[in-house]
Order: sequence, then structure tokens, then C-alpha cells
Amino acid sequence: MLTFAGSTVFLDNNKTRTFFKTDLSLILNTVVCNRCRLLQKQFSARNWIREDGKQAREVTPQPNFVVFLKLETPSNVKITVIGGGSFGTAMSKVFGMKGYQVCLLVRDPNIVAGINQDRRNPKYLREFTLPDSVCATSDVESALEDTQLVVHALPVQVSREVLEKVSPFIPTAVPVLSTSKGLEVTSHKFMFELLQETVSNSGNKRPLAFLSGPSFAKEIMQELPTAVVVACESLETASLIANMLSSSIFKVFTTTDFIGVEVAGALKNIIAIAAGMAEGMGLGMNAIAGLVTRGCSEMRRVAEFLGGSSVTLSGLSGVGDTFLTCFGPLSRNRTVGYRLGKGETLSEILKTSQEVAEGVATAKAVVEWLPAVLNTTYTRALVRFPILLSVAPILEGRLTPEEGMQQLMSMPPTVED
Amino acid sequence: MLTFAGSTVFLDNNKTRTFFKTDLSLILNTVVCNRCRLLQKQFSARNWIREDGKQAREVTPQPNFVVFLKLETPSNVKITVIGGGSFGTAMSKVFGMKGYQVCLLVRDPNIVAGINQDRRNPKYLREFTLPDSVCATSDVESALEDTQLVVHALPVQVSREVLEKVSPFIPTAVPVLSTSKGLEVTSHKFMFELLQETVSNSGNKRPLAFLSGPSFAKEIMQELPTAVVVACESLETASLIANMLSSSIFKVFTTTDFIGVEVAGALKNIIAIAAGMAEGMGLGMNAIAGLVTRGCSEMRRVAEFLGGSSVTLSGLSGVGDTFLTCFGPLSRNRTVGYRLGKGETLSEILKTSQEVAEGVATAKAVVEWLPAVLNTTYTRALVRFPILLSVAPILEGRLTPEEGMQQLMSMPPTVED
Repeated sequence: MLTFAGSTVFLDNNKTRTFFKTDLSLILNTVVCNRCRLLQKQFSARNWIREDGKQAREVTPQPNFVVFLKLETPSNVKITVIGGGSFGTAMSKVFGMKGYQVCLLVRDPNIVAGINQDRRNPKYLREFTLPDSVCATSDVESALEDTQLVVHALPVQVSREVLEKVSPFIPTAVPVLSTSKGLEVTSHKFMFELLQETVSNSGNKRPLAFLSGPSFAKEIMQELPTAVVVACESLETASLIANMLSSSIFKVFTTTDFIGVEVAGALKNIIAIAAGMAEGMGLGMNAIAGLVTRGCSEMRRVAEFLGGSSVTLSGLSGVGDTFLTCFGPLSRNRTVGYRLGKGETLSEILKTSQEVAEGVATAKAVVEWLPAVLNTTYTRALVRFPILLSVAPILEGRLTPEEGMQQLMSMPPTVED
Repeated sequence: MLTFAGSTVFLDNNKTRTFFKTDLSLILNTVVCNRCRLLQKQFSARNWIREDGKQAREVTPQPNFVVFLKLETPSNVKITVIGGGSFGTAMSKVFGMKGYQVCLLVRDPNIVAGINQDRRNPKYLREFTLPDSVCATSDVESALEDTQLVVHALPVQVSREVLEKVSPFIPTAVPVLSTSKGLEVTSHKFMFELLQETVSNSGNKRPLAFLSGPSFAKEIMQELPTAVVVACESLETASLIANMLSSSIFKVFTTTDFIGVEVAGALKNIIAIAAGMAEGMGLGMNAIAGLVTRGCSEMRRVAEFLGGSSVTLSGLSGVGDTFLTCFGPLSRNRTVGYRLGKGETLSEILKTSQEVAEGVATAKAVVEWLPAVLNTTYTRALVRFPILLSVAPILEGRLTPEEGMQQLMSMPPTVED
């Protein structure tokens, strides 16, 4: 259990006061930070209530470790989740279980009706019920009215269109938490860039945050323990969202390295296709583990080049998510790879697939994007990034999975990097 | 395919000569280096044959990138593998398939007879045959006579005794490649320290190398593709061994970071027990992936503290091997964890286990060793290393797997590190 015994809040003139409640169900946000100044800008002291019921005084910047507790009932706080797929549904459940008032914005009237009438999403993960505090609507304006947090859970390739449409209705300064991963094919842009261009542009600089980690939606719905990371340029905002999500079954770490989280989130789908191929070819677990590890190393080097951190790439959103995708139950991306490995062509596979395998688009985008970013040619980039850059030629039928694997295995011994 | 077109060897007086054969089956060792001095010390020029059949001249130190090719038939080179368990047997196969003369040193006369008569290890992986160039013996002296590489593949806890016994028979300057992983319980020492005290001490400073990576012995025997890393303080020796092992199904990377490889190799067995527990408790894949990722992060921080590199820990010997152990077929260590997670006690489990689960000893050793290394108390170290340090109390029955998991999940949100 979370315990705040001994936590102290520093007030003005070096006086301290312990002013939290022990009733944790009432605690909305725990903001842990060691830079008060940023905090002061974001929260006015009038919202903070002391243990004795009096108003908290303005806080003075202190170098010390500070714990703030905002006492407010979650049921007064509205959260809007955009997208009624598996992950959007799971996020609704996580926030709903904490008592937040969750509004799911979905286009499909059957999903709206299913959730409002039966507390079930009739299309995704229908075997699980949602908390009573979750409702659904197709009406953008009412979905976003008075919302305090927007959660984006749509496939990357449709995100721009929807975000442009909903952006005017998101209240000013409300943070947007993205759970979508991939590169936009038309622009070769990451979700953070896409969000910057739609909901957090110069006109309205809403805080952007990104959630990632090894988290199958189905297991979240089953209330099995899950650990994720929330990334935001401002660690305070990341902590705020982490505390809103955290529970005894949902553990949230924070980071400011949103670049690392975004790069891993997008590129791991390519690795998943490659791992699926090795599986389809019957190459065994050593081969898959080696391939995924080397793929993660390529992702790390891309992220570092773009300013991300190796710690993030070796963390929950990096190797954690990638290995789960590659070793867990067959995901959409791995299924595509598996069927390629078994000898099917991409067009045959796409004909019989219902859901979007984000990695197919990402693999094709990265073949153009990565050499351009590195300011080099495809052939030169291939030496350093043989896994990330070989999936697209295989998808396009210009290389067989066997040839791709041979190329990898025949590279001369080199230093591990 | 490996191609050496255009590679050049720098000889004395800045003259260059391309003197390799294209017949790769004859190539024993490719030594790629950019520091000739070390190379000169290790190899006398008389072994190097030029393309025109003449003797190579002594090489002069050059700052350039140099490729040497030593032309010698592998069948003239003897390699001794100590230990006839699964991995020793697999290593015999890898070297044997390359044509090396492999001598397996084992105590069990049944294994000696089985290998010499049927080319099969009757106790481990008996369904697979070994190449004709592999033979076995129990006689230490003849096993090590004229050997050019010693491969150590015994359980850590019996290694010191055996190595002390065989050390006088290992020829001077012959490298020792260790594939064993773990902490010696009695001394809290890693394999590299144990080897330093036995076969590579001040009297005879034999080069030490360490092989690790996601490599189930059974899949190696099945000739499925496998990628590993060989670590050695001297990159030249690592490259030499890498080239001896490399084939189209066995890919070898090199590193000088033997500390990172050793730390990961030892500590991953503890993570495997923890992952097994989560599995036994039925917690799902998200929980296991989260636990393993955070466990790898703890391993990385230990390795970095000891001078290892984060690149190694996020590589084949780090996350690669750890995730394979935790997501692949049930290993010995994971089985122990699984049964603990199902409610059995350690003594019940040990009664019905035939093979050694290295992680049990390592988990107990690390509880004393890690706080001492960090110069802190167990309780303080537990905050930073909750996974590595919670397995021993569970093994000893002082904590239940459920309590251990609750402790982990209830830690307040923190920055991912």
C-alpha cells in the first residue's frame, strides 16, 4: 500500500506542515517533485487543503523533496478517451476503476450503446465489463466539455484527421496523453510531432504526454498487474498523470524522455514483424531472442541519434514492450511476419486481416525516413540497421524472409553496439 | 557470404600486401584489429602464409585497420571442452562442425563411452549426434595436452575445485573461454574472479574470455540460428574466438566488457526465478514482462556500478538472454520460481529436482554481496534493487511470493531508471 507517513510539505519561511489525509480514496493527485517553482505555476494554492481543513499557503521554492496532496474526489474529474479500440477501452477501465468520470469518444453507435447500456464494448474485449463511471458518446463537443485530461487511443494513420477535428473542443491547457504508436506514413512523423501540429501548436500549447510499456489490453481488463511508463517534457505533468493512473495493479513510472518512448513505440512494430517471420520460418527461440535483441539495439541507436536516452530504450517502453510483443500471444504485427515467414505474400495476408498492423506502414516509412534523418543512403544505413531496414523489402516481395535472415547471419563478427 | 575483397595487410616500411586465399574453408582465424602491437605479441609471423606461399614478414605497428588471415586447417587445432552437460555438449558441436578437433573432458565414464562409440551424449541432449571430430575422455592430462583453447562449461559451484585440479595441465598462454554463469556462494565471486584465482593468476596469466547470449543448448544442437557475444579484455582475443565459433548458423559478437557480461550472466538467474513466480501465481504476461524489464534495469545498475557498460546489459548477454530465459521454455531457474509461485516450499522443490538451479545459490549470495559492494544496508539497497533482493527471502520462506509482488506494486511512482 501507498503510505505517506513522514511526508512533509515545505511552506513559506522554512516552516513545514504535514497536511495529508490518510483516506487514500480521496487523494486525486500526488505530485512528487523537487522543483517547486514549476509546480507553483501549475497549481494555485487555493486548491490545496490542509489536514486541519484550512487553506494551504503559497509555497516557496525549496530545494527539498516535497510531497503535495490534492484532496478532491476523482468522481468530480472528467477524463476523455478518444478511441474505442482495445487499448482505449482498457484505459477507460484503468481510470474508471480509480473513480474518475470517463467519457469514451467513439464513432461507432453500437459501441456507444453497448457501453452506456451494458458497460461492455460490444466489439473489443466484450467479455469484460467497464466500471459504472465510464460512459460513451459520438458527440465531440459533449465528450470534451470540461474534460481535465484527454487520452488519445486511435491508430496513428487516422490520428491527424480526428485530432484536427476535435482540437477546437479540447479545453485550453488540458494535457493530452497519447497511447498510439507508429510513424505517420504520409509525413514520416512520430505521434509527438503529429500532436504538436494538431492539439499542441503555437495557438494552444497543451502539455503532451505519452504512455507506453508491456501492456496487453486484455490483461489490463482482467485486472492483472501491469507496469507502464508515462513520458512528458515536464516531469511534474508526467507525475500528475502517473498518480492519476496508479493503483495496486497498475504501476506507472515517469520519464521526461518522450523521444525515446516514441521511437521505441513506433519501431518495435517492425521488430515484431521480423520476429514473426523467424517464428514462421521455424527458426527457434534463440534466433528470435537474438533478432529482437539486435533489433532493440538498432532502435536504441536511432533514439540516441534523435536525442533519446538509452535508459528509456532498455526500459518498459523499449525492450519491455518489444519482447512482450515478440514473445507474448501473437499480435497483429507478429501475425503478419509469421505468415510472411510461412511463405504468404503481403497482399494475401492483408486480404484476410481485419485489424490494422501498424508495423507494415511503419516499416515502409522507415526505409525512406531513416536514411534521410541519418543523411545517408539506404545501402549505407542498412549496414548499421539491417533489421529495421530489411522488413520493408520483404513486405514488398523484393527479398524473401530466408534471404533476409541469411544476410543478417552472414555479416562478419563485429563489436556488440 | 564473408568476403575479403580489397582487404589489405600492412607490412613493414608502409608496404602492403594482399595475401589471403579465397578458399574460406581453409581459414582458421580472421583477426580484425586496429592495434597491431597486441597482435604481434600473440602470434609469431612464421604462422602467417602469404598468397604466394612465402613466409609473411614481421608486421610493424600501424594505426590502420588491418586484416590478418591465418591459413591452417581446423582439424590440426585441438580444443578442450570441460564439462559434459547440455552446454558443454552444444559447444563441442559448434566447434566440431567447424572441423576443430574437440576433446570433451567429463568425469562420467558413460558419457565418455557414449560420445566415443555413438557420437552421442547419453545423459544430455541424447537425441542429437555430435560431429566425428568430437571425442571424450576422463583423463585430465591427455584432454589438455597440446590444446589451443579451453572451454569451461561446468556449474559455477563446482568450478573452483575442478579448475584448481586441471590448471597445471592447461598449456601456457592458452585462452580459457567460460560459459558458466553465477556467483560462487562461498566467496561471492564471479566466474572471472574465480578463473583469475585458478587458471589465470600471476604465475600464468592466460587470457580469459566469456561467452553468453540467448542460446538454448538444444537449439544449438538442432542447428538453429543462434547469436551470442564473446567478451575478453583484449578485443583481439575476443575476435579470434569469435571467428573460430562463427558460422552461418552461429553468429558471434565481441566486446571488451566482460564485467557486464558476467554480471548479467549471474544475476539473470535471479530474475528468472522471479519471473517463474509471477507465472506460477498466474499474473499474466504484462506482469512478467514488467518484472523482467525492471529486473534487467537493476542488473544494469549493478553492472554500471562495477564498471560494466549499459550497452552490454541491453545486448545479447543482458536483456537477450534474460528475456529468453523468462519467456522461453521453462528453465531450471524459472521452474523453481514457478513452483514457489504455486505455493510449494524450496525444500519440497529441491527434493524433486535433479539439476542445479544456479539462481537459488546466486539469489542467496547476492543478498549479502550487493549491500556490501554498495557499502550500505540490506534495507537501503532493497529500495534500489527490490527484485534482485526479494528472491532470497522468498526462497527462505520469510516472505510469500504474494507479499513480494505487493511490495513491488505498492512502491510509489518514480522516474524510470
